[in-house]
Amino acid sequence: VEGKKYATLRDILVTMNAVDVAGIFEEMPEEKLPLLFRLLPKELAAETFVEMEPEAQELLIRGFSDHELKEVVDELYVDDAVDIVEEMPANVVKRILRQADPEMRKMINEILKYPDDCAGSIMTTEYVSLRPNMTAGEAIQRIRCTGVDKETIYTCYVTENNRKLVGMVSLRTLLFSEDEDVLENIMESNVISVNTLEDQESVAQMFTKYDFAALPVVDQENRLVGIITVDDAIDVLQEETTEDFEKMAGMAPSDKPYLRTGVFETWKSRVPWLLILMLSATLTSMVLTGYETSLAACSALIAFIPMLTGTGGNSGTQASVAVIRGLSLGEVEFSDTFRVVWKEIRVAVLCGVTLAACNFVKLMVVDRFLLHNEGVTVLVAAVICVTMVFTVLCAKAVGCLLPLLAERIHLDPAVMASPFISTVVDVVTLVLYFQVARAILHI
Amino acid sequence: VEGKKYATLRDILVTMNAVDVAGIFEEMPEEKLPLLFRLLPKELAAETFVEMEPEAQELLIRGFSDHELKEVVDELYVDDAVDIVEEMPANVVKRILRQADPEMRKMINEILKYPDDCAGSIMTTEYVSLRPNMTAGEAIQRIRCTGVDKETIYTCYVTENNRKLVGMVSLRTLLFSEDEDVLENIMESNVISVNTLEDQESVAQMFTKYDFAALPVVDQENRLVGIITVDDAIDVLQEETTEDFEKMAGMAPSDKPYLRTGVFETWKSRVPWLLILMLSATLTSMVLTGYETSLAACSALIAFIPMLTGTGGNSGTQASVAVIRGLSLGEVEFSDTFRVVWKEIRVAVLCGVTLAACNFVKLMVVDRFLLHNEGVTVLVAAVICVTMVFTVLCAKAVGCLLPLLAERIHLDPAVMASPFISTVVDVVTLVLYFQVARAILHI
Repeated sequence: VEGKKYATLRDILVTMNAVDVAGIFEEMPEEKLPLLFRLLPKELAAETFVEMEPEAQELLIRGFSDHELKEVVDELYVDDAVDIVEEMPANVVKRILRQADPEMRKMINEILKYPDDCAGSIMTTEYVSLRPNMTAGEAIQRIRCTGVDKETIYTCYVTENNRKLVGMVSLRTLLFSEDEDVLENIMESNVISVNTLEDQESVAQMFTKYDFAALPVVDQENRLVGIITVDDAIDVLQEETTEDFEKMAGMAPSDKPYLRTGVFETWKSRVPWLLILMLSATLTSMVLTGYETSLAACSALIAFIPMLTGTGGNSGTQASVAVIRGLSLGEVEFSDTFRVVWKEIRVAVLCGVTLAACNFVKLMVVDRFLLHNEGVTVLVAAVICVTMVFTVLCAKAVGCLLPLLAERIHLDPAVMASPFISTVVDVVTLVLYFQVARAILHI
Repeated sequence: VEGKKYATLRDILVTMNAVDVAGIFEEMPEEKLPLLFRLLPKELAAETFVEMEPEAQELLIRGFSDHELKEVVDELYVDDAVDIVEEMPANVVKRILRQADPEMRKMINEILKYPDDCAGSIMTTEYVSLRPNMTAGEAIQRIRCTGVDKETIYTCYVTENNRKLVGMVSLRTLLFSEDEDVLENIMESNVISVNTLEDQESVAQMFTKYDFAALPVVDQENRLVGIITVDDAIDVLQEETTEDFEKMAGMAPSDKPYLRTGVFETWKSRVPWLLILMLSATLTSMVLTGYETSLAACSALIAFIPMLTGTGGNSGTQASVAVIRGLSLGEVEFSDTFRVVWKEIRVAVLCGVTLAACNFVKLMVVDRFLLHNEGVTVLVAAVICVTMVFTVLCAKAVGCLLPLLAERIHLDPAVMASPFISTVVDVVTLVLYFQVARAILHI
């Protein structure tokens, strides 16, 4: 590929999708990058630029002449420009803004003023707006004239003079209407919109719920300030899902891809929860120390502690993950608490009894008969199996209740997932175990 | 709302989005449903019908006259019709197909023949196809004539007489071209398409990667057979994410919402993994039994077993979840194994040392000084803290390696998540613990 055959390389690149071109560029040695980039036609160059990693973008910008930078910036959609500006160091941002034309600069600054993670920060201000008294034919004409640099022309918004949002009309509706139809009569006047400060996660959920291609963003006075398109909503969904996974595994969420996060950064995101969980295990130590005499009297019990706490943890995690996912998909709400608990109790009884029965057989056949573990008497096996039923019951109850309570007090239910629940369940399991042992074995 | 004021109710409903109408209908008593449904205008009725739960749909269909059923079916997009048909019992399916017009029936059967979870099963066959020798003006005219019942008119596909896919052109391009431009010259001829049998998850990932609004589906001979639109891709993404969450918590994936899954069904999806993990804990029991004499010699060690295995499990889960998510987002590949392991080792050393240091202080201050636990000598604390470092190291290594290996042998990496890793790490931790104890305490 690198035999100075730039003309043929160019011919290949222009037929490719910008995402793939960016993928190829990422693999190239850094010093070739500016040269390769200059091979691309203007529009593809801008699209490719958007798809590259921030490091490569910065490198390119530093290599650009002011004129080249202006060419790229002019081709960008304003929401992509904002994403890039947010990742760059201050001096690069200054250069970008200096090259942007005044209108673009104003729009970038407009979007930058919204807090991260809200609708305002992911919207674009490049949309097609129409007037209610236009005819369908006029509207199509207007789209043809002004639509070239708009992010979408398929969903257009109808506003009054004061920018108040009064309706929505799709290009589809316009095309299938008579040219003389007045927008007022063919537009959708009950428009679902979001406020600039709405949380981006709930915005993304609206896209999955309503299958919109775009959603208008309005300010407190219902004035249209921007739109969010479905591709940005998908990115938010992926981001928020990754955050949920991370929180559920006891990690602070990071917005960088795994391999691009430094070792120190990863350590910082992981160690706090490990510490908290480790220190809270002091409780399990105390329980075990408290029952030291019981343990001494029947040392066979020790061997089954990890199995019981493990099964408890797994049972609890199953319930909690099911409920957390239900909450985040909107399938479960706090008002369903009773139904959820009642369901989990019945599932827990079924699971607990199944596990206890299998475990009893296993203890008798494997531990007593095959491994000749004399300590595993029928009574000890009974203790283990009775504890098993109670443990699964408690674990499932705790597992489904904690996320619901977190939701109620406006905490993210995801933080109540597996690691946290395992710690709670460990303590409960041990106390149950020794109480059952005392009752059955009289120790 | 129920004061027989059907006319006003109708006026309110017609302004609403079909998703919200369906939401309201779900809350209504079953016997009112057919009556309410008949209030809706034809198009809204069909859209609302699509958004309802299968139970309600079946109820409605059973209440419909043949004529009413035909009206609804005629308004449906073919991919929605397929979704409904897939959920209905055989006799209802027969009635639906009998009312569908022959073309619709043919399309439904066409899609039904593809296996579940592949591109063919989520596509629709209602797309706009154009010819390469048409002009932009002719193309727009054709869209206006034939587009009304197509799922999307914004992305159109250019095919030759034999249905071979030769290009793609967006309505946007058409509108911004001169009327006389020939499609051949303005279309995108390097079309990214998927095969009918492609896995639906990788199709969905293509949408997130390329930000497409629609993707063409072709057969082995590159003949266009259908398209997949972005809203269907989002549904697949949500579904696959839920499956990942479920697998990672040791549950068999279910495609029903949490509250609509029966107790017995939930039990069936959860108990197998619990059983496997419980039985595999036989290993930890064997380790504990094997070191019984060491434990008897220094009973203080027992109290810290849950803390060590818990911290190991949590550390391993963090690494595995980070890698699993990286794999599913395409940020990490098997070829990155060395980089991943090297990163995790360094993170593990940092985490292990931090945890061990904090733990040593805690053991000395809380356990020895505050709780007067005489068994916790400096040497015992040293055993615990040295084990901690090794445990975190092993757990992180196992945690990042197992998902990568699973990927390599074409297993879903998600099944290697927390419960499985905890079980492996438990055994490793215990062996480490007693080996360190023997070395330091000479027991």
